[in-house]
Amino acid sequence: MSSAKSPWTLSARAAKMNPSVIREILKVTERPGIISFAGGLPSAKTFPVAEFEAACAKVLRDDPSGALQYAASEGYAPLREMVAANLTQQASEQGQHWDVNPSQVLITTGSQQGLDLVAKILVDQGSRVLVESPTYLGAVMAFTPMEPEVVSVESDEEGIDLADLRDKARGARFLYTLPNFQNPTGRTMSEARRAALSKASGELGLPLMEDNPYGDLWFDTPPPASLTARNPEGGIYLGSFSKVLAPGLRMGFIVAPQAVYPKLLQAKQAADLHSPGFNQRMIYEVMQDGFLDRHVPTIRALYKSQRDAMLQALAEHFPDAATQPEQSLTWNTPAGGMFLWARLPAGMNAVNLLPHAVDKGVAFVPGAPFYASQADERSMRLSFVTPSVEEIRRGVAALASAIKEQQGR
Amino acid sequence: MSSAKSPWTLSARAAKMNPSVIREILKVTERPGIISFAGGLPSAKTFPVAEFEAACAKVLRDDPSGALQYAASEGYAPLREMVAANLTQQASEQGQHWDVNPSQVLITTGSQQGLDLVAKILVDQGSRVLVESPTYLGAVMAFTPMEPEVVSVESDEEGIDLADLRDKARGARFLYTLPNFQNPTGRTMSEARRAALSKASGELGLPLMEDNPYGDLWFDTPPPASLTARNPEGGIYLGSFSKVLAPGLRMGFIVAPQAVYPKLLQAKQAADLHSPGFNQRMIYEVMQDGFLDRHVPTIRALYKSQRDAMLQALAEHFPDAATQPEQSLTWNTPAGGMFLWARLPAGMNAVNLLPHAVDKGVAFVPGAPFYASQADERSMRLSFVTPSVEEIRRGVAALASAIKEQQGR
Repeated sequence: MSSAKSPWTLSARAAKMNPSVIREILKVTERPGIISFAGGLPSAKTFPVAEFEAACAKVLRDDPSGALQYAASEGYAPLREMVAANLTQQASEQGQHWDVNPSQVLITTGSQQGLDLVAKILVDQGSRVLVESPTYLGAVMAFTPMEPEVVSVESDEEGIDLADLRDKARGARFLYTLPNFQNPTGRTMSEARRAALSKASGELGLPLMEDNPYGDLWFDTPPPASLTARNPEGGIYLGSFSKVLAPGLRMGFIVAPQAVYPKLLQAKQAADLHSPGFNQRMIYEVMQDGFLDRHVPTIRALYKSQRDAMLQALAEHFPDAATQPEQSLTWNTPAGGMFLWARLPAGMNAVNLLPHAVDKGVAFVPGAPFYASQADERSMRLSFVTPSVEEIRRGVAALASAIKEQQGR
Repeated sequence: MSSAKSPWTLSARAAKMNPSVIREILKVTERPGIISFAGGLPSAKTFPVAEFEAACAKVLRDDPSGALQYAASEGYAPLREMVAANLTQQASEQGQHWDVNPSQVLITTGSQQGLDLVAKILVDQGSRVLVESPTYLGAVMAFTPMEPEVVSVESDEEGIDLADLRDKARGARFLYTLPNFQNPTGRTMSEARRAALSKASGELGLPLMEDNPYGDLWFDTPPPASLTARNPEGGIYLGSFSKVLAPGLRMGFIVAPQAVYPKLLQAKQAADLHSPGFNQRMIYEVMQDGFLDRHVPTIRALYKSQRDAMLQALAEHFPDAATQPEQSLTWNTPAGGMFLWARLPAGMNAVNLLPHAVDKGVAFVPGAPFYASQADERSMRLSFVTPSVEEIRRGVAALASAIKEQQGR
């Protein structure tokens, strides 16, 4: 009945899409017994299971029809109000006046969906989109179906390079930036750089797309105020509940100015009608009575202790990092979040090292896939949140052993 | 700090996106006390609340880390296996051999998301996409950001017109069809038409995109076997849990051949990483032990009684429908689903009638927005599932009163 020839013609955009390199890498590392610094998985110890149980029961008892029926594409109104109030308060504590109105909040199916929606309304085929170097790979993957030209802006420990930004900003639809405890580098954009970037983006007429899934996970002091808070009409802010509550409910949000909100809403409606009303109510119920004010400090303390364990183990195994950085593994000291960024000795390549590390019982993610151009082949991302302190010590020892063996060849 | 000029440049695709006409219409009809035949909302009476409560508790007790953590983009393996087994069994009962493998199943955030993902991988700017006339408006809205040329194929009570299909198929990327109890018409494609369409699509090399959210809601006998079951390599099948369990969990699925599955998976990962693992487990738990075999018949019985009430009330208020169809409201008799398709007397216009009907206390959706071209301005969609039997009687009386008053002018 069917012709022998395949009837399917894939779109040009589909040809540009690729399986996540990291996903493929993670498959290799998912052998039992491997200590994984690779995944970006929050520690399951931090999931407030009892609170979710109570919230489930309450939602299904108090408002089953509301929670289980079709609902507004904007999201559950009380949750939108809570998000707006929390952001307004947080900005105020950080010295900024950002009066977020609930009408600016769009609830999304994880903040990942926010990337898809923003790309749909701002990116045409060939549109220039600026990203940090390196940047979150999942963002580039979300933009790709809209066929942008993704251009890397040079970045350092303080954030993106403003001279390079000015060179590349012409005609760009937006700059995608992850200023707090960035994925993959763990870097935080400094206050001076934020102020300068906010000023420059205003002058250049360059919208900012600020992605902030990790901002609450600071270890000693909160990061500087958000970029969007400094110029709300010139930015879109993406937030997430995945790192402070749990990723498995897939709940995030967008805060957008009136210039783009209606189109984002149309894109949202077309994409999945609305995010699950049940999940929105669960998140809302769990967040009652300032729950996050009690809960998030426990996550910070846990992750800080694990970061410290990793820093200590690295210092023990690589005592020459400061004095002979080209002959040693080197690394940064993230002030929060989930990731540390490390660099192999000169001449080494993280992709090539990975199978040897896995043989030794430890996994990481090579840094190269996170670069939209000019990858640093020596770089690697180490997550310190999934394994325990004891596993971190053993994992760093295994990594050091793999590096030294490779270095000796 | 910011320049006076707006920094935002919207994409060309965004300019093609529009707010849902129906959504705007529904806002008008959401006054308290209005009897609504407008919404496509399943009856909240059918939501298995107690079963969801038990499932919630079980999931969070037995596997909280699994349910709340990041997970595979394909979906929860036991749910994928259950979907595959159910479809295989259903096809067998309908006389078709369709051996659905779990590896072909992709869990989506409602079947609406399936429309977005399929459009991403199959539609380029200007690609021809064929739809029924009329068709599900939400599908056209999901395709629009990919900038297709949407072309209507003439359709009658039995399904799409094959001669018109052959005229329009050249170069089309796919035909989107909703063969069971279609939204908006309530029509079911006949067995003869399905057999002919399946043959023609094979000959034409035209992929079919079969959307089946309502297929389980038959009243007397199941509909004919699915189109995809007849030629699995030539079709993509979209399914939903929204009408048999609840829409508010936003759970649906795609079944796709190997020729397109990997690209759909990449599009899914980029769009929202994965659908909520918690919700997938809730659906899976509720469906244990053949729950749907007991539950769905209660939905069928309820909706059938409500359809019957609507048919009876229409017959009472419009006794001349058979003898003088141009001077009367006329309507079809859906064999399942949620919607009935009606047509106003000659010279009337459903959009113009709506405010008068709302004044009388009843709402419906005009049919015109469901046509991609050559709208029938006299058509309207009447949902019989949201109001009670008593409300249906009062609503039809109010509708008849509005029509007769307008007709008299």
